Amino acid sequence: MKSTVLHGPGDIRFEEVPEPKIEKPTDAIIRIAATCVCGSDLWPYRGIQAGSGPTRMGHEYCGYVEEIGSAVSTLKRGQFVVGSFATSDNTCPTCGIGYQSSCAQREFVSQAQSPYLRVANASGTLVTTRDAPDVSMVPSLLATSDVLGTGWYAADAAKVKRGATAVVVGDGAVGLLATLSARQMGADRIIVMSRNPARQKLARKFGATDIVAERGEDGIAKILEMTRGLGADSVLECVGTGESMRQAMQVTRKGGHMSFVGVPHGVEIEGQSLFFAHIHLEGGPAPVRRYLPDLIDLVLSGTIDPSPVFDLVLPLSQVAEGYKAMDERRAIKALLQP
Amino acid sequence: MKSTVLHGPGDIRFEEVPEPKIEKPTDAIIRIAATCVCGSDLWPYRGIQAGSGPTRMGHEYCGYVEEIGSAVSTLKRGQFVVGSFATSDNTCPTCGIGYQSSCAQREFVSQAQSPYLRVANASGTLVTTRDAPDVSMVPSLLATSDVLGTGWYAADAAKVKRGATAVVVGDGAVGLLATLSARQMGADRIIVMSRNPARQKLARKFGATDIVAERGEDGIAKILEMTRGLGADSVLECVGTGESMRQAMQVTRKGGHMSFVGVPHGVEIEGQSLFFAHIHLEGGPAPVRRYLPDLIDLVLSGTIDPSPVFDLVLPLSQVAEGYKAMDERRAIKALLQP
Repeated sequence: MKSTVLHGPGDIRFEEVPEPKIEKPTDAIIRIAATCVCGSDLWPYRGIQAGSGPTRMGHEYCGYVEEIGSAVSTLKRGQFVVGSFATSDNTCPTCGIGYQSSCAQREFVSQAQSPYLRVANASGTLVTTRDAPDVSMVPSLLATSDVLGTGWYAADAAKVKRGATAVVVGDGAVGLLATLSARQMGADRIIVMSRNPARQKLARKFGATDIVAERGEDGIAKILEMTRGLGADSVLECVGTGESMRQAMQVTRKGGHMSFVGVPHGVEIEGQSLFFAHIHLEGGPAPVRRYLPDLIDLVLSGTIDPSPVFDLVLPLSQVAEGYKAMDERRAIKALLQP
Repeated sequence: MKSTVLHGPGDIRFEEVPEPKIEKPTDAIIRIAATCVCGSDLWPYRGIQAGSGPTRMGHEYCGYVEEIGSAVSTLKRGQFVVGSFATSDNTCPTCGIGYQSSCAQREFVSQAQSPYLRVANASGTLVTTRDAPDVSMVPSLLATSDVLGTGWYAADAAKVKRGATAVVVGDGAVGLLATLSARQMGADRIIVMSRNPARQKLARKFGATDIVAERGEDGIAKILEMTRGLGADSVLECVGTGESMRQAMQVTRKGGHMSFVGVPHGVEIEGQSLFFAHIHLEGGPAPVRRYLPDLIDLVLSGTIDPSPVFDLVLPLSQVAEGYKAMDERRAIKALLQP
């Protein structure tokens, strides 16, 4: 089959690779209904995170069970499933407290921009829908797999509460769906930091009440001015740079909650700054598996619609254009159809 | 009057200074019943934290109201009061959510190793006891002012729960009273990292169930071995160095809670390490004011007795010996009597 391989900075190829096979009795093979390009895929694409040789890409997926290993009793061929970027057994003590993305059995998915995918720990990782969904629901279900699940974690880890004020740092797809999540959790005021008119518009559609276009010190000053000098109850950091982390920390109120959900790149948090910021901080790989059943319900019932983050739809064979459009910020997020 | 002044590394003098006066209508002057030397006083004493010229010292105190400003309506001359190192109005939005040590009106107390002390924001800062306490209770009441209040915050911010496993990093006075606090909050297993036999003994008295004498990688390995490879639910970092912070982070279970309550010195937290640690982190100046009423009750009712941390009692005039004994780790904590 043909799949997505990164050969070096900016060099994405759709080329022949071996078909996936069941390797362990706990594996499943799924036929991908849709996959997409993640903001985090751009780190190696831009050469910021060095790869070692050609690398298979992709970790967001939903699709149909094609084959199961002998130890997989919870799935049947043909079922529609959603998984996430971190596989988990969903039975260990870490999974038991809802941190499945740090499961001791975790394997990171990295070959999902493909027609077929092997998923390890299939029983613990894949969540089925009751019926095969209408094709129109596939983009929203795909979103639950990572970008919505991660945005939801940003809001949950920042303890967004009914009536509270939230700040979202970052207007990428995760930031936009963190906005939707904060709205769904009842935040009264949601301030999104964005300079891009198209993204500002989508942020408002998802529930932003205020947009701050200023950055750095000006952005911090603006948000403090909007929050009686206190900062916000909940701050959702959805970028992962030193600059965005510092900005988020400085607009969180004393005693407030800050989350960070993107893998940090080049971030060092100075101890005394964090100490005197006096905040709660939670971050890490989003435990999407914890949220998947609820998110799938919210999507299928029409309560939320995350699909507008996909503003570019391409056949999988044109995956290179998906990366390019996102790298150049012409697209927020590219959905790929095998 | 004579008071404590740091003139340079290792140079503590008990010398003549002006008596404190009411400067603002919200001030009070208190006559100190007892004060003490804090672990954090040792940073400037050791020259690690540079001072600019002679510096008055001390921020732990309890005593009798001597004089009040015209705006102080909640206190009367002669009442016994306990305050903390950070004054607070106790009415602002930050105080309202229990983060009084980050009050917008905050002034740090720094002249308490004295016979008399001016306390700003007196109404919001000072907590009275119902009656004048017996003199035997003064050491325990003094402890609530900072060292117990800070240990309590370590346990509270690390979300110590009934039946849980807690690790205390640090066997200084704060670490020891963090142990007492974790016990009081119902932790089932309390592992204290300590190499000093006298402190190990006190840790056990305060509720430690296990002592780990190993440090660094060996200490981490030992604790992981004791916790099924998972790490602890709650980790209380009571030192404030890069080494102790890394150690604490690595023995906190995924999804667990870590607190840090000592001002960090030379600490840089690497972003990806924190991300993949996947923990909740809370730290900062302990909001002792939030806890004072309850801690005073617990002490006066005899439910807890933090006073054994004071293993050296000196007249205030011998304050220099108090610093020296703590610096050389001959004493855990020196109580000073004016």
